[in-house]
Amino acid sequence: MTGVNDTRSPDSRRRSERSRRAIHEAALALVTEIGYGRTTIEGIASRAGVGKQTIYRWWPSKAAVLMEAFLDLAEQTAEGVPEGAEPEIPDTGDLAADLRLVLRATVDEMNNPVFDAPARALAAEGVIDAGLGAQFVEKLLEPQLQLYVRRLRAAEEAGDIRPGLDHRTALELLVGPITHRWLLRTLPLTHAYADTLVDYALYGLAPRD
Amino acid sequence: MTGVNDTRSPDSRRRSERSRRAIHEAALALVTEIGYGRTTIEGIASRAGVGKQTIYRWWPSKAAVLMEAFLDLAEQTAEGVPEGAEPEIPDTGDLAADLRLVLRATVDEMNNPVFDAPARALAAEGVIDAGLGAQFVEKLLEPQLQLYVRRLRAAEEAGDIRPGLDHRTALELLVGPITHRWLLRTLPLTHAYADTLVDYALYGLAPRD
Repeated sequence: MTGVNDTRSPDSRRRSERSRRAIHEAALALVTEIGYGRTTIEGIASRAGVGKQTIYRWWPSKAAVLMEAFLDLAEQTAEGVPEGAEPEIPDTGDLAADLRLVLRATVDEMNNPVFDAPARALAAEGVIDAGLGAQFVEKLLEPQLQLYVRRLRAAEEAGDIRPGLDHRTALELLVGPITHRWLLRTLPLTHAYADTLVDYALYGLAPRD
Repeated sequence: MTGVNDTRSPDSRRRSERSRRAIHEAALALVTEIGYGRTTIEGIASRAGVGKQTIYRWWPSKAAVLMEAFLDLAEQTAEGVPEGAEPEIPDTGDLAADLRLVLRATVDEMNNPVFDAPARALAAEGVIDAGLGAQFVEKLLEPQLQLYVRRLRAAEEAGDIRPGLDHRTALELLVGPITHRWLLRTLPLTHAYADTLVDYALYGLAPRD
């Protein structure tokens, strides 16, 4: 709606953008309050103060509204990342420091109720509903995991990790434990925990002799 | 009901045991088919062919029935473990081999629909419902994680892992990634994946030089 081929007037575009934001916020609020299953297009429209035809015109399904609302939320909560910029994991040449930075930011996000509540509701539904889960992974999760793949590939080129590792699996040593604590609420998610994970994953549990 | 102080006749104990099994199976089937939220004590009783007072006499809540049903299921699906035996992680002196064995068994369990479907339903509910999640962690998950803590402690004593590690965090490098793949269904859970996780967690991603 806001792409380069948009020929509408600035006023019309502003109104559309305002409606889109309201719809995103309504969708996230509803999924948090009543769960994915009971959230409906009608409910989102009513809460956002728009006609439901507005939603049907822009999105093919309830899942599609929510996925876009999440992408929008993730952009808003990713502090310091310029709008529209690809949020790459930094490469300062210090792999451990770069990973600590991104894992600490992940911990902060998981501890932030604005992100936690709707993300938890959507993740729980994806655990049960394989179709929704697949969309969740493809649209939201896997693109984030690929940032780690790219950073690890650069690390391999720099000689900072062992050659020949499967980077897609390797990143799970960082992301898997944090997600485990987040979803199952086993123990607190802290910066110290993030730092420890980076240390253990990079340097291994076995003695280095 | 079947403890050492049970003074009922053998016939009565057999009937009780049969009812208990039927109730467990009904609870697991219902939570799989209609989810935790819509499963009721009445529904479990009806499906198990017992009066609901039988259930109320033995368990304080729906959650309690399900937790016990799961413990029962886990015992049944843990092949080769004698009934009632504490299912310790083996200690053959080869830490990597012992961890591969237990992670491969975990992969098999997660790929087994008899375990997967009800475990997934209960885990999803725990993601949303913090109270149920806490029970799930305390009764089912944490006791299993403590098996890893004990095996890693023995490994430290044997000099097979670095001294001074936080064993409760270290085990998450193995259990976290597998749970991530299981719950979010990102990529296949295979024995090769389990083996790779053990290699990466023990020997680290950084070069060993």
